[in-house]
Amino acid sequence: MVLSVKRLSIDDARILLEGAAMKSREIGVPMCTAITDDTGLLLAFEREDGGKPTSVSIAIDKAYTAAGARRPTRFYGERTTPDGPTWGIHTSNGGRFNVIPGGLPLVLDGAVIGGVGCSSGTGDEDEQVAQAAIDHLYAKLNEGA
Amino acid sequence: MVLSVKRLSIDDARILLEGAAMKSREIGVPMCTAITDDTGLLLAFEREDGGKPTSVSIAIDKAYTAAGARRPTRFYGERTTPDGPTWGIHTSNGGRFNVIPGGLPLVLDGAVIGGVGCSSGTGDEDEQVAQAAIDHLYAKLNEGA
Amino acid sequence: MVLSVKRLSIDDARILLEGAAMKSREIGVPMCTAITDDTGLLLAFEREDGGKPTSVSIAIDKAYTAAGARRPTRFYGERTTPDGPTWGIHTSNGGRFNVIPGGLPLVLDGAVIGGVGCSSGTGDEDEQVAQAAIDHLYAKLNEGA
Amino acid sequence: MVLSVKRLSIDDARILLEGAAMKSREIGVPMCTAITDDTGLLLAFEREDGGKPTSVSIAIDKAYTAAGARRPTRFYGERTTPDGPTWGIHTSNGGRFNVIPGGLPLVLDGAVIGGVGCSSGTGDEDEQVAQAAIDHLYAKLNEGA
Repeated sequence: MVLSVKRLSIDDARILLEGAAMKSREIGVPMCTAITDDTGLLLAFEREDGGKPTSVSIAIDKAYTAAGARRPTRFYGERTTPDGPTWGIHTSNGGRFNVIPGGLPLVLDGAVIGGVGCSSGTGDEDEQVAQAAIDHLYAKLNEGA
Repeated sequence: MVLSVKRLSIDDARILLEGAAMKSREIGVPMCTAITDDTGLLLAFEREDGGKPTSVSIAIDKAYTAAGARRPTRFYGERTTPDGPTWGIHTSNGGRFNVIPGGLPLVLDGAVIGGVGCSSGTGDEDEQVAQAAIDHLYAKLNEGA
Repeated sequence: MVLSVKRLSIDDARILLEGAAMKSREIGVPMCTAITDDTGLLLAFEREDGGKPTSVSIAIDKAYTAAGARRPTRFYGERTTPDGPTWGIHTSNGGRFNVIPGGLPLVLDGAVIGGVGCSSGTGDEDEQVAQAAIDHLYAKLNEGA
Repeated sequence: MVLSVKRLSIDDARILLEGAAMKSREIGVPMCTAITDDTGLLLAFEREDGGKPTSVSIAIDKAYTAAGARRPTRFYGERTTPDGPTWGIHTSNGGRFNVIPGGLPLVLDGAVIGGVGCSSGTGDEDEQVAQAAIDHLYAKLNEGA
């Protein structure tokens, strides 16, 4: 009855960080990028030269939220408005539930196996870099397949 | 490969506090004023006679936020509204990300080298005193140049 | 029936910081020094160039403890040993109750009116600088008397 | 009057992580390794496959402590015993002041420019991996010189 779960390896995490760094350089926004496993626990992190000090914990919390809640942080941002369906969720988890765009769950074969969180740019830029990290990993996994 | 960064000295911080105290007396609002380095770490602080007890941590957090996020706290306040682009950022960093006017980054030669945070008056008054602190330092630096 | 309490002014706090800085330079140990009022609330703070980052909160907590508990922090350190009379007090107050030498209450006419906390050197050095700050203030008060 | 300080770059941090991973494989202990800048702020982190979940924050706090307090965490562990000179320091900094072996300051030209923290093995194993990370960076810097 014991479950078997899929989980990001540190090698996968390094590929995700590589993908984030490539996109970050391309758009000229030095980024903080965090990678978590499927439980939201930190696997890897990089603050590029020029990444914002206050974005260290924001990036970590975005990845934590996306992995743990199984949704992009943007999803919650749109619903966490007064009278919205998730109103108040942003102060939960000791304030770590982050609802700013830039956190994405990493899905493999229908299951969430990790999370990616980026911070230092606008929410759109952060999300673009997080998506590029995921696309980079998918491309590498397909090469290997 | 090691980076070389500029950072406020304690002498600079004292000049900033002096500038804040002058403006604070001028407008008749006793102020809490905090000065941080470029990473948001506290360098110097003063609570003038009559400064509000709850403003001690607000001033420190405003300086922390402005230095670390490289923006005036007002910038984030304007965007941290339901559906706004930074909605939710106010609960990040353990609740220390402050979005009330009165925190200003200190910029020298294009780089953020510290932060100034004021609290006890209205947001506009707080920001006015923080700006006066920075203007006072710039004037002193120019005298020395 | 309302009480009248004596409390440090910001001018007194500046004299205390001046006294601390003089002694700190004399012994060649750059210091973090915090001054609180009689309730342990921060009045003034300075981190000298070279003061340790981890000493920011330690200095603030030493002053908080000495003012609030009406005793030198060393007093509690000596008693906060397994089976000692104050065992466990070091984790109270959200972990802010500091029992390392370097925090001193400031006494005037038999009443505690504030606290001084120093950190960055050894406990003995920290306490020496805190004492020098207090001696400097007493000397100034006597001059004025 | 503005100070100029040296700080680890992300490229340096990646070399440190590479050195840690090499030693970690050599001794067969999967490790959590954190790299901070000179103020203790996180620059980079890796949890190798098999690294302990509770070691994520321990590694980060060891690096934070070693960088901020300018000493190996072992130094404080040896002195943070009942009646020891730093007794009580382990609850400071919001509980982040870590006194277990495995955190080392990174020194360049006499100045602390960052910190390395390892956790998942014994304290001795953790410190061995942190030292290997630093030795690896020094070797690379000397190659480049």
